[in-house]
Amino acid sequence: MDIWVLSTSRRGQPAAKIKFEEKGTHSPMQDELIRNTILSIKAGNPEFQREAEQHIDSLTKPIGSLGKLEKTAAQYVALREEKTPVISGKAVYILAADHGVTEEGISAYPKEVTPQMVYNFLNGGAGISVLARHAQSDIFVVDVGVDASFAGVKGLLNRKIRRGTRNFAKESAMTLEEVCAALKIGIELAEEAKQQGRTLIALGEMGIGNTTSASAIAAALTGVQASLVTGFGTGLDATRCARKAEVIDKALRMHFPERPDVAPDPLEILRRVGGLEVAAITGMVLGAAARRIAVVIDGFICTAGAAIACALAPNARAAIFAGHLSVEPGHRILLDSLNLKPLLQLDMRLGEATGAVLAFHLIEASIKIYNEMATFKSAGVSEAGA
Amino acid sequence: MDIWVLSTSRRGQPAAKIKFEEKGTHSPMQDELIRNTILSIKAGNPEFQREAEQHIDSLTKPIGSLGKLEKTAAQYVALREEKTPVISGKAVYILAADHGVTEEGISAYPKEVTPQMVYNFLNGGAGISVLARHAQSDIFVVDVGVDASFAGVKGLLNRKIRRGTRNFAKESAMTLEEVCAALKIGIELAEEAKQQGRTLIALGEMGIGNTTSASAIAAALTGVQASLVTGFGTGLDATRCARKAEVIDKALRMHFPERPDVAPDPLEILRRVGGLEVAAITGMVLGAAARRIAVVIDGFICTAGAAIACALAPNARAAIFAGHLSVEPGHRILLDSLNLKPLLQLDMRLGEATGAVLAFHLIEASIKIYNEMATFKSAGVSEAGA
Repeated sequence: MDIWVLSTSRRGQPAAKIKFEEKGTHSPMQDELIRNTILSIKAGNPEFQREAEQHIDSLTKPIGSLGKLEKTAAQYVALREEKTPVISGKAVYILAADHGVTEEGISAYPKEVTPQMVYNFLNGGAGISVLARHAQSDIFVVDVGVDASFAGVKGLLNRKIRRGTRNFAKESAMTLEEVCAALKIGIELAEEAKQQGRTLIALGEMGIGNTTSASAIAAALTGVQASLVTGFGTGLDATRCARKAEVIDKALRMHFPERPDVAPDPLEILRRVGGLEVAAITGMVLGAAARRIAVVIDGFICTAGAAIACALAPNARAAIFAGHLSVEPGHRILLDSLNLKPLLQLDMRLGEATGAVLAFHLIEASIKIYNEMATFKSAGVSEAGA
Repeated sequence: MDIWVLSTSRRGQPAAKIKFEEKGTHSPMQDELIRNTILSIKAGNPEFQREAEQHIDSLTKPIGSLGKLEKTAAQYVALREEKTPVISGKAVYILAADHGVTEEGISAYPKEVTPQMVYNFLNGGAGISVLARHAQSDIFVVDVGVDASFAGVKGLLNRKIRRGTRNFAKESAMTLEEVCAALKIGIELAEEAKQQGRTLIALGEMGIGNTTSASAIAAALTGVQASLVTGFGTGLDATRCARKAEVIDKALRMHFPERPDVAPDPLEILRRVGGLEVAAITGMVLGAAARRIAVVIDGFICTAGAAIACALAPNARAAIFAGHLSVEPGHRILLDSLNLKPLLQLDMRLGEATGAVLAFHLIEASIKIYNEMATFKSAGVSEAGA
């Protein structure tokens, strides 16, 4: 079977078509699990969407006056195909990995912080630890490529592919086999979530250097120049931020000489400038969308992974809820390209799924509004006049 | 004793000073409770503020990366003056009243909806009923001036002053005695909250016609022209919205002929174009600030009440948390004038404290972050490099 994937259109040109069959034996599209996952992703159910909107308009409030909560509820109903929507088994997944590109001095923190923060997650002292407890959410910490040994460490899901990516300023970050492995880890985690009865999950990441990878992905996917999607990360000064944009720009010229006129293949973007945790996030978004599990994405890095998923399977958009808008300048550009409206705008830039898990409360609120509010008829309230 | 209150400055002019003593025997400033409340309001404690900021910077996250959550926690600590801040006894108060100006046809809904919604609140079917349950908050519905009889209705706090205000398009909405009574009701409710051990309360309102009152207050307080602070309310079309702005503009010319060059006295704004629920909200903000209770304001109408409170006692700002940004165009203008940053931006415009009570989750999150996150030292995480 041939699989054609529409890539991002550029400058009014029709979008380029990529035939994955042409990519040789190691293409992730040759893998049965990945291929079947992508093929099985459907859009939100339009009938459920319409009925949900009608129901919401019958509730005792002015039409549209609950704004994003109304849109969130309708999207959830259309995804879950349930007349009385239920949220169960909330969980947050933090995908952790290291990045070879840290060699270029693009981060404010040393890369040792990645494993140190993994321990902090497991000990319950990190931002996401606190916020997951606050949201009454389960929490999973997944090592997909941290450059440290966690032998014998309890509570960590060991899915390590290799100890960090290669330095994408010099060579491709991953091989196709590694991309394939990371995508499958994500899909398998989504399958486990389904087996555990989960209907709402949040994704986040930890990986020193990963805003550099996300900026490169955003620039490659959208055609925007690197400097516009490069930010201060965890706390660079302006000089080092400019250096970071330069590293990204140079790498993109090396990896994709035809950019920005020709949009690169999303899987090649992932392989050349992505990260192991980003690829796992792409896999989890695809896996969740295929199983109609609602998936809340966090900030810039997470959205980069989701954007690759949507480039591979545009219908995956139906399962994605944008938790918040990060301070990173590339985040808004990526969200806009996906037509996703963030639920929260708290000037945050921590990652770890902190913005995503805070949004659980709002998504749950929208579903309770949907299920519990009185209608004009049931409450005997007069409707708006002509 | 003379009490001088700085009114809003205009067009670069120094702010006008208003001497309340001059206002005759019925001035609210002659009332001992109101006067003592205003005089006792202090700013946030700067030492606690500084210590809170230092503590937040020691937590395992890049400096400032939790954005508004960090500012919220520091403000709460400075208000409560507690090294280990505690939130207790969350409650939401919905102040309900009717508005004589509905005679002018400025609302999409008939005024009968005010009492109908009061019943809906009491029966648990309204938006705020659902969201207060979701936030695990107590809920109080207070009748300060609904144009209906609720004799024998259980669960409603009866503080009715009169059945709706007068039509401010023709005469002053209230007498000074009525303003005084409403302010005292608010202060007394804050005192009851204190007696009940509450440290965090949300305010909201119900009153058909009250965005018209809020727009008039916003225009009078800020000097902005009426059309810029007048919105669609619960669902007007553009023609009726223009009519609404015209009604407000005409009323402001009648009540305050020297506006916009001279800023009117805030209590005169309240008396002439305010509402009974707005005045009660002003009283509650003052009462809460005097008792160092954190008070989350909801949308446009609630912020109008809070803005009057801040005009009377600028230090009250220390106790106020802006729950959300409403779609009403005047809301952003009022929040900006108070230098308040809303926690949520969900395109909502329902009122009832729905936006305020949703923000409880974020304020609680900020306090848990403050109390529960590990420090770089305690978790053995490396700090940012030079």
